[in-house]
Amino acid sequence: MERLTLHEYGPSGNCYKIRLTAALLGIPLERRGYDILKGETRTPAFLGSVNANGRIPVLQIGERFLPESNASCVWLASGSRLIPTDRFDHADMFRWMFFEQYNHEPNVATVRFWLSMIGEAALSEAQRAQLPAKRAAGEAALALMEEHLADRPYFVGDALTLADIALYAYTHVAEEGRFDLSAYPAIGAWLGRVTQQPGYIGIGE
Amino acid sequence: MERLTLHEYGPSGNCYKIRLTAALLGIPLERRGYDILKGETRTPAFLGSVNANGRIPVLQIGERFLPESNASCVWLASGSRLIPTDRFDHADMFRWMFFEQYNHEPNVATVRFWLSMIGEAALSEAQRAQLPAKRAAGEAALALMEEHLADRPYFVGDALTLADIALYAYTHVAEEGRFDLSAYPAIGAWLGRVTQQPGYIGIGE
Repeated sequence: MERLTLHEYGPSGNCYKIRLTAALLGIPLERRGYDILKGETRTPAFLGSVNANGRIPVLQIGERFLPESNASCVWLASGSRLIPTDRFDHADMFRWMFFEQYNHEPNVATVRFWLSMIGEAALSEAQRAQLPAKRAAGEAALALMEEHLADRPYFVGDALTLADIALYAYTHVAEEGRFDLSAYPAIGAWLGRVTQQPGYIGIGE
Repeated sequence: MERLTLHEYGPSGNCYKIRLTAALLGIPLERRGYDILKGETRTPAFLGSVNANGRIPVLQIGERFLPESNASCVWLASGSRLIPTDRFDHADMFRWMFFEQYNHEPNVATVRFWLSMIGEAALSEAQRAQLPAKRAAGEAALALMEEHLADRPYFVGDALTLADIALYAYTHVAEEGRFDLSAYPAIGAWLGRVTQQPGYIGIGE
């Protein structure tokens, strides 16, 4: 296999998704860190060679660069048990991964980033104004997950897929954004099932 | 094949993606419309049977429901020429589809919806406050597309994929949100290539 380098910021759930996918599949990754709080992904060198979109994570595969966390997981998990082959389940896995990027990450992850990494006192006026709407949208995303998981062990089918990995990344640290997970018992049980997977690693590993 | 019903709102680009994918592949779809401006996707019946997330489009496949526009396209295009099989290109197609839902749709599509469907005079204070940031983020998404298309005919490889369909849907009507597409000549040429595909249908068809 070509050499794999993850261009990342350690505490980012989007980066962790990729490390977790690789760990569950036993695929070794090299890691190169950038401090996004210092603008290290907006330098001309980064924009010109790693990602013109100025964002991490980017999975480098040999000399090629693949941005977008969920796309990197798709590359790593190609042909593995983490991607269902049944036509409906396959598309349904992507349904939850698009839900994650559209309804969950911009709310649950952004509130966590603002409160625990930037800090409430340092937020801009515009960020502060968006906080109530983002909290409400984050709770709505968690409520939808709770309802779905009430009678299922995983998001799609009977086993862990990339849908679970994508949603686990920011859900399991949602309390850093002051989301109260004790209100979501089915999510709590599911988080536990994810940690029991052989090869599981935590976000700080 | 099972009976396919698209639960939709006609002018939505997210719904159009699915109709365009089906048209290019010659797959017949039944259509059932909802007026999102009247809250028809937030009724107990819709939430209980079609999509607990209260959103369209949803592709109904027999008795099963598949939300998320890009996931519906994945189901329709399964095994077709619209999804590359090369491992990198396959993941790279998803890279652009996640980019579309994260960086493009919440900006280019939302500004269009606010200005041409709700109307500027009827916007809430919170919407009005977000307009400049959403316009800037929309322009940034278009600029990234322009740079990528400067020396390529399509987003991934040498032929049209779901990445093009996903990005075409709201780009080709971006001027309804007062984005000036004449500033993006490579995007203009690419829009033309999409309309030349055999089986192409417009958003109003």
